[in-house]
Formats: sequence, C-alpha cells, structure tokens
Amino acid sequence: MTTKEKVILDCDPGHDDAISIILATLHEKIDIVGITTVGGNVSVEKTTKNALNISDLVGLDVPVAIGASRALTKPLSVAESIHGESGLDGPELPEEPALKPIDQHAVDFIIEKLLESDGDIKLVPTGPLTNIALAMIKEPNIIPKISEIVLMGGGTFGNWTPAAEFNIWVDAEAAKVVYQSGVPIRMFGLDVTHQALATKEVTKRLQTINNKAADFVVELLQFFIHTYKEVFDFDGGPVHDACTIAYLIDPSLFEFKHVHVDIETKGEFTYGMTCVDLLGTTGKEPNVYFAETLDVDRFWDLFDQTLQKF
Amino acid sequence: MTTKEKVILDCDPGHDDAISIILATLHEKIDIVGITTVGGNVSVEKTTKNALNISDLVGLDVPVAIGASRALTKPLSVAESIHGESGLDGPELPEEPALKPIDQHAVDFIIEKLLESDGDIKLVPTGPLTNIALAMIKEPNIIPKISEIVLMGGGTFGNWTPAAEFNIWVDAEAAKVVYQSGVPIRMFGLDVTHQALATKEVTKRLQTINNKAADFVVELLQFFIHTYKEVFDFDGGPVHDACTIAYLIDPSLFEFKHVHVDIETKGEFTYGMTCVDLLGTTGKEPNVYFAETLDVDRFWDLFDQTLQKF
Amino acid sequence: MTTKEKVILDCDPGHDDAISIILATLHEKIDIVGITTVGGNVSVEKTTKNALNISDLVGLDVPVAIGASRALTKPLSVAESIHGESGLDGPELPEEPALKPIDQHAVDFIIEKLLESDGDIKLVPTGPLTNIALAMIKEPNIIPKISEIVLMGGGTFGNWTPAAEFNIWVDAEAAKVVYQSGVPIRMFGLDVTHQALATKEVTKRLQTINNKAADFVVELLQFFIHTYKEVFDFDGGPVHDACTIAYLIDPSLFEFKHVHVDIETKGEFTYGMTCVDLLGTTGKEPNVYFAETLDVDRFWDLFDQTLQKF
Amino acid sequence: MTTKEKVILDCDPGHDDAISIILATLHEKIDIVGITTVGGNVSVEKTTKNALNISDLVGLDVPVAIGASRALTKPLSVAESIHGESGLDGPELPEEPALKPIDQHAVDFIIEKLLESDGDIKLVPTGPLTNIALAMIKEPNIIPKISEIVLMGGGTFGNWTPAAEFNIWVDAEAAKVVYQSGVPIRMFGLDVTHQALATKEVTKRLQTINNKAADFVVELLQFFIHTYKEVFDFDGGPVHDACTIAYLIDPSLFEFKHVHVDIETKGEFTYGMTCVDLLGTTGKEPNVYFAETLDVDRFWDLFDQTLQKF
Repeated sequence: MTTKEKVILDCDPGHDDAISIILATLHEKIDIVGITTVGGNVSVEKTTKNALNISDLVGLDVPVAIGASRALTKPLSVAESIHGESGLDGPELPEEPALKPIDQHAVDFIIEKLLESDGDIKLVPTGPLTNIALAMIKEPNIIPKISEIVLMGGGTFGNWTPAAEFNIWVDAEAAKVVYQSGVPIRMFGLDVTHQALATKEVTKRLQTINNKAADFVVELLQFFIHTYKEVFDFDGGPVHDACTIAYLIDPSLFEFKHVHVDIETKGEFTYGMTCVDLLGTTGKEPNVYFAETLDVDRFWDLFDQTLQKF
Repeated sequence: MTTKEKVILDCDPGHDDAISIILATLHEKIDIVGITTVGGNVSVEKTTKNALNISDLVGLDVPVAIGASRALTKPLSVAESIHGESGLDGPELPEEPALKPIDQHAVDFIIEKLLESDGDIKLVPTGPLTNIALAMIKEPNIIPKISEIVLMGGGTFGNWTPAAEFNIWVDAEAAKVVYQSGVPIRMFGLDVTHQALATKEVTKRLQTINNKAADFVVELLQFFIHTYKEVFDFDGGPVHDACTIAYLIDPSLFEFKHVHVDIETKGEFTYGMTCVDLLGTTGKEPNVYFAETLDVDRFWDLFDQTLQKF
Repeated sequence: MTTKEKVILDCDPGHDDAISIILATLHEKIDIVGITTVGGNVSVEKTTKNALNISDLVGLDVPVAIGASRALTKPLSVAESIHGESGLDGPELPEEPALKPIDQHAVDFIIEKLLESDGDIKLVPTGPLTNIALAMIKEPNIIPKISEIVLMGGGTFGNWTPAAEFNIWVDAEAAKVVYQSGVPIRMFGLDVTHQALATKEVTKRLQTINNKAADFVVELLQFFIHTYKEVFDFDGGPVHDACTIAYLIDPSLFEFKHVHVDIETKGEFTYGMTCVDLLGTTGKEPNVYFAETLDVDRFWDLFDQTLQKF
Repeated sequence: MTTKEKVILDCDPGHDDAISIILATLHEKIDIVGITTVGGNVSVEKTTKNALNISDLVGLDVPVAIGASRALTKPLSVAESIHGESGLDGPELPEEPALKPIDQHAVDFIIEKLLESDGDIKLVPTGPLTNIALAMIKEPNIIPKISEIVLMGGGTFGNWTPAAEFNIWVDAEAAKVVYQSGVPIRMFGLDVTHQALATKEVTKRLQTINNKAADFVVELLQFFIHTYKEVFDFDGGPVHDACTIAYLIDPSLFEFKHVHVDIETKGEFTYGMTCVDLLGTTGKEPNVYFAETLDVDRFWDLFDQTLQKF
C-alpha cells in the first residue's frame, strides 16, 4: 500500500492550478490538508472564488484559506491576458460559490498545520510564493517542519520577461525567501512544464472520458490552448502546475538535477529570474531538485487515468 | 484638556527605545495601547525581554507582543557594538522578567487593534519596520485605519553605512512597503535626532531629579554616551527614538518639511538609504513630513519634566 | 564572382579565436583589413602575441593593433581555466613572434579604417566588446559607417555564470554600448555555438587533411576538447568564434530570429546576461539577428574545405 | 618663488567652468597646459565653443582639444535649466569663435601630455569624468603619471537627484573608473562648493574692479544667480568649479578629510551618488581628500584679487 502525500495546495487558479486541484482531489495518493489562495493570475478574491467553485465541482471538502492580495514589496501584477478576466475563463462557473472560505488567514493556516504536524506535510505552491514566504518570516519554526516544497515556477528562461517566469516575477522577494530557507525544493520550471503541452490531440483524448471532471478540464484546456496560441504562438497549452501533482503521484515521471538556484531581485532586465546553475559555475551548494525532463507519454496516461477516477 | 495620543510602540530596545517607552509611560498625553517588539538592535528575544523589564520598572501595564525575528528578505543584522550584548547594557536588569508577553503575534496585535479602532491609533516604530510592513501586507485594510506613522529612521546621511541609517538598513524592503503605503509619515531621521544629543551636561542635570526612572535613564545614557564616543567619536549619545515621543507630546518642538522620500533597495553601496527630496528635483508628490530642526533647549526641558512625573 | 567581405577581426586568441583567424585567412571570400586585440581569455599582451604568431603561421600579412587591457568599468578577468596560461595552450608557439604589432591603438585603427571606408567594413568581435565600445564612445561618427557587427557572445544561458557567457560578462557595459548603438548585429551566442561542437570524430577527420594549418587547428582542438571535458563535462569543444567566419563565408548555414536583446549590467546574479526576447514579451524593437540553428554537417564540410585551401 | 601648478582643465563651460578658466588664466601660479572639453552642462560642441570664446576674451593661448560627446554607457544628459541653451547664457559671445580647437582628440591630448611629463601635471575636471576615464582605460600607463586629480563633483547630498550631483550623475561609470584608479583625488563636492556662494553682495564688489574679465564674470554670475533662484530657490549662485582653482592657488583656504568614497552605479534612486565615508563605517582605505570647509572671506578676497590681475 502506498503512503499518502499530505499536501497544502497554495495556488492562484488559474487554468492549470484548477487542473492541479482536480487531479489532486481525484487521486487517492494525495491527501489535501487544505487550499490556500494567493493573488497572482488574478486577484486573490477571484482566485479564492475559483478555488471554491472547483472544490464544489469535484466534491472536495477541505478548508480554503484566503492569502496575500499583494507581493511582499509591491502591488500585485496579474496575468489576465492568459487566464481571462475571471482567472478561469472558458467554462461557466457560479458567481457566488456554494462553499465558503474559512476565517483564518492562509498564512496562519499554513503555520498552524505545519506546527501541529509530524513534519510530513508538503507545500505545493503553484502561484507566487508570497504566502509561503510570509509564513516563514512570521514563524521561522515552521521551516524544519516542511517535508518538501513542490513548486511550479521559474526556469532557465522566461515567459513574462525574457528572463523571468510569471510566478517568480510577481514576487521575486518572496521567492528569494523560500529558495534561501534550506527546505528541500522540487522545482518544476518552464523547462519541464513546456513539455507538458496539452495539444488538440490531448483534448480529443480527454473528451472521450466523459465525466464532469474531464469535461471541465477539457473546457479549461480549450480556452488555455487558445490564449497560448494568441499570446505566445504555441501549438498547445502547457499544464504547468499539474506537473507538481503528477510528481507527487509518480516521481518516476521526471528526471531531476540537484543544483544551486539564486533568485535575481536587483536586475534591470532580469528581475525574478531563477538562476539555475546547471554547469556548476557558482560553486555553491545545491538547494533545489530541478526537473529537467518529463516522460510525456506516461504523463498523459496518468492524467487520463486520474480523470477517469471521478 | 488635551486629547490623549493612542499609540502602539513598535520597538527594539535598545537604549533610546527604552527611554522612549519610559517617557511615553510617564507623560499623561500618551496612551500606550501596547508594545510590539522586533529584532533590530539585538534579537527579538532580547528586545522583548528588555521591553518587559522596562515596563516592570516604570509600572507600565500594557500588552507586549513578540514580533518579527528577521527582516523580510534576509536574516537579521544587529547592532551590539552600540547597545551591548543584551541590547540594554549598562543598568542591571533581571534575567527573567516579572512580566510576560501575550500569546498573540505582534503583527496580529497591530492588525486587531487597528481594525477595532476608530482610526485614532498612531504607530510609533523605533526599530526596523518589519512588523509594520508585515501587517500591511497581511491585512491591507489596516492602511486607512492608521492615523499616522511617527518613526525614527533614515536621514539624508547614514550611520551604518555612508548612505544608510541602521533601522532602515536592517530591512529596507519593509521600509519601502511602509513609505509607499500612503499613510502619513512623520520621519525623525539622523538629521534631527543628532540634534537630540545627550551630553555629559544633560546626564548631570537628569541626575538631580532623583527618582528611579530618571536614575535608570541616566545609567542608560552613560553607557550610550560611552559607545557613541568609541564607535563614532561623538561627544554625546543621540536619543534618536525619544524624538518620536517628544513630538507626540509637543509637536511644536520640531520643524518639518513635506517632501518625497524613496527607499533604495537595489544599490551596491546605498542599500537602505532614505532618498529625501529636499530640493524637489524628483517632481514626485510628498509622502513624508521630514523633521529638520529641533528646539534643543525645550526638548531637554520636556525630557526633564517628564522624568520628574515618576 | 562573389563579393569579398571586408572585416576587422577584434579578438582575444584564445583557441577558437585562433581558428577564426585561420579560417578567415584561408578563405578567399574574406578580406581581412586588420586584427585588433583585446584582453579577455588572457591579457592583451598575450592575445596580441598569439595573434601575431597565428598570422605568421598562416602567412597573414595585415596590421595587428593592440587594444584595451581592461574592461570599461573594472579590471580584466581572464579564462585561463579554459585556454591555459598562454591563452593558446596545446601547440608550441614562439615566445617572441616574428611579426610586430603596429603603433596605432586598436581603437584608433578601427576608427580610422571605418571613417576612410565606404561603409563596407564588418566588425567581427570574438572577445569582450571593449574596443568596439571605446571606438563608438570616442568617435560616434563611425556608427553609421559600420556595415554590420558579427559577434560571438551571450546566449539565452551562460557558461561563466548561470546567466552570462564569458565575453559579455567580462565587459557588460561595453556590450550595452554596442547593443544600443543601432548598428545591425549578427549574434552568435552559446545557443548556436554549442552546436558547433568539435568532437573527437571531427579532429580525426581534420587530421586527414595533412597540412600545417589543419595540423595546428587539430592541436588547438585537442587541448580545447580536453579543458571542456574537465571544466564543463562536455564531449567536445565548441568552436564558438568560428561561427562568425562560417557565417561570413556562407550565411545559409544559420537560421536567425530578429529580436530585441538587452544587456543586464545591474543584476546581483545576472551581470552580463544577454536578455534575448524570443517570445516578444518586451514589445521592444528588434536590434539583433540572433542565430538559432546551425546546419552542423555543412558547417564541418565548410570547415574542412577551408582548411584544405592552405 | 612659488612653484607653478601645471594643469589640464577638463571642463564643460558652463558658467562656473568659465569662471575657473578665467581665474586660472589670470593667476601666475597656474600654468595651463591645455583645455579639454566634454559634453555635460551642454553638448561638447557648445562647451568647446564656449571654451574658445573665453580663451579669446582673456587672451589665453593654449591648445583646446574636443573630448567626449556622450557618457561611457549612455547618451549625454545636459543641464540647460541652469546654464541656458548656449551653456553660457548671459553675456554676449561670438557665434564663431576667433580661436580654433586642435585636431587631436581630448583623450589623446591628455594621454600624450601625461606620458611626456615628469609626473607634475594635475588634472582639473570640472565636468563629467568621461574624458579622464577614457584616457585611463585606453592608456593605463598614464595613471602613475597623474600628480593629482582636483575635481568638482559629488557630495554627501545631491542637486540633480536627492542623492547625486550633476557631474557625477551624468557619467557615474566614468566616475567609478577615476575614483578606483588609485590616483590622489582632491574632491570639491556640493558640501563645500555651496559655501562658495556668489550673492548679490559679491557681484557688487566685483563690479567695482572695472576690467573686461571682471565685468564678464559679473555678467555670468548675474545669470547664474537668477537660475539658482528659479530652480533651487537659492539666494546666490555657487561658483562650484572655481573651488578647484582657488585650491590650486591657495590650498590653505580649505580643510579636508581623508576618506573612502564609493560611486554608486546600480541604485534605483541613487545612481551617481558619491558615498563619502565620513564616519569610517566601511573600514575601507581612504582614496579621496574630501573638502569639508571653505574660508569664505579669504576665498572672495582671492577671487577679487585674481580678477584685478587682468
């Protein structure tokens, strides 16, 4: 019998965040302790509404705690060009979610659950790292309690600027706090998430599953594929955040390199870059397991099988 | 009858912080809602112990809440060369304070008191601005509730580097958050606090008061004058933080200029500088009332009279 | 009949610079106006000696002018771990070259030749861009006279730091001047030069040519392959600089993308990065033709055929 | 008999540069080797024209060499709000100067004169430091030949931004090169040049001298006083650059502190700041004699007496 992975999903849904939540909910290996929301793809009000609606749709019953509405040192920047005004454009969703968030702030929820834990909770941030950084700053005692941070962010190239990926760029100072914390990090950056490219063939395959979860995912993907074509001229939409859940279900899907990563916060053109030391030129100790390759076929098989569990 | 000033003292005692707490306690115009501590001159464990011991010494009975132990984006740096290993070297103080801090985190104490208030609370930070910034990031709704921020920090020149004053340098990112918040700021930087120079003549005058509070202040000043001579070759110790309380008691002691101030966080040699636009060259809107001059004689009179109230 | 390409080779030989000079000398399509040296792989004294020795070896009779011994804003950094102490370790070369440099400074040679020209000279920098930048700063009237800058440097990833390639990192301020000059730039960065990988199979092929130039190149490559294995764990040595000459002989070997490139000079971890806007996220006008792909087989055919011309 | 001071005046006239040239010409202690011009207060074309016109006016017959038209890493920024469109608004001056500049570039003039010298030439830069930096980069052998650099620039506060003085801000990278060169520097920054304030009383006094040079200086001052009132609300115009010549004539007019000065080139709000370590907090070796105080009365006496020598 496999051990369950206890996770807190810290997210800003967002199409690929939404897909992550659905996969995590449906797969028996994942035990969701709670969802914490953060401003990122859209405002935290919208990402919270989206998290509640998705939970309701797939029957997930865990605490949803509202987190940071801004970055550590600056106002929030959002990505409506990619995710639409709602953050989840495409499918129809209720204006007023049936579920409600808890009263506790996301930062305090994270702190409380970690301090209560046996050190077996993994944090799974798929948005800006503001909540995780705030929790570490407010209560440094959580740091040795975090089993692992499994995050989507960064890469050796950027998608929001030539050097920076969106999640890290939104709050590079928060990323710096997290990357310097000493907690083991599994990093799913653009290098690997662009391999998880949902093409039209993928959506056709998922359409044959024929359940509410799969249909919803297909609707999300259709919108996402469309905006990725418009904005980046990609032939498909990368399901970035879903890589984190796929890893938790089956780590053998990925190959990692143990490397040092620094976060650039001072650059004129490179703010928010994750400087991944693949050649070992810095001589610094590794602090990150950097995902380099994805077994694409087995990834989509897992994706398909998980959606069938609904 | 004068209106009382409701204040939260956010501090890192520290000799001059200690003097501030004492003056604020003794003067009837100041209504201390609580004390929040922060790592700065020494670790937050030590600044908390010092705040509790001082409260006990002068019979102050308000909540003391423990705050941040590090800066937003980096570890804490301390100033033991100035304040000694305990943060309050000079007088004898109990190893185990008779009073205890509350359970609530300083950041949550600040948020709760502000949200409950009628917008009449002033924040009085005399250490690094980490707690204030964290409160603003975690709960932006406090921002319109803050009546004024009356802070010691910065200046047109530095004391920790050629460009930066210690409090701002310890956490320039926090300072950036606070200075960009839109809250009215009264800034007591080195330009004016170096005018509040406690010389040997000052200590002689205070020695004649002959009560426990005054005697304690004298002991603090003697140590402080000594280290300022050693480290900076000053003929006296500037009671930086006490300027904030003197202003709250009698604003007419100071002259202010309404100017724009930016916080440098990127510079190679200027990290933590408060860029005070005295000539108006930036063309930016003023965000700070910058204290330029102090009526030195009346300041020491007020200082003396307040200590006599014990 | 093909038009000849008039070029000034601005270089810091260096193994791959040396190979560039040899190819340019041997191929009838290239008309070398002169060689200018710069500190880079090793000191400018050494790069000049190397340039003179190579000229002598292949019978090249053009002016060699000594250039900058340091970067614009800082001392020189060298790459002896890659090129050995002499800058050209491997083959035996005379301590005292038979040829002599001219008296004119490289910067003045470049300025003079450009001002005298009909605008048909291409600059081919394969070291740090210090000389080119100095010439542009000293005499801005050369800028409209430069036909094209065909340079080796930068890339979307680094080899000297995680973000920066050596040539640009040595003098990022000079690179900034050149990239902002408005002159058309053909940029051969690591993305494409790593495709020009001299493997052991390549050296075996070249060994069959059996003339002095080819034998010398083989000796250079053997040393270079060795250090690339040691330092970077590469199975081969990329003949970076030779891409510039290959392009001048046969532009159809490469595919380019017309993009905007910014040079990072402020970053904490990214100094010297060429920020290549492949996705068009900056919205800025293209200033660079960025080489993306190399026809590897035809490249080595050209390489082989050119060496046979000796 | 006093030794003469051999100087190269590197300048961007500019009202106070013009006054410097006049004082240096009239005083027998100063031996002007040549004048080199640089873009600064206005374009280098205009500063050269102004230098030629002033030379003609006071009968100075030395080489005038044209220097840099831009900063090391960026285009030129000018200060026409202070000096008017011509750079010397106020007095009438010929459109076509009677004198002509030499053919040699300022950078080469500086290099040649220094290399030929016995190490007894002082450089007196009163504009951006571009020419001096270029000379040092192009020919590092001049560095041990420079007797002293006597410059106007910087200060512990700014006049072009809150942190930076105009000359340094125009080309902070050049300033960095010069300040790190190891050459002894006498620095006349705003702290001391603002003490050399030409008030209306000063101009009245100078009006009584009644010769062509003095009358011209009065016209310059009247315009300068006017713009300083308009732009900075000053009651007088500081004759910044003239402090360098006054020092060369009579060093006892000034008191200096031997300190370390770093040049900020990375800051967001502090680009071009001279970080003067007056308190010794950096622990770095002094590289600058920083002028702190001026004997104001004796300064104006010297000023007056020198103008009477015409």
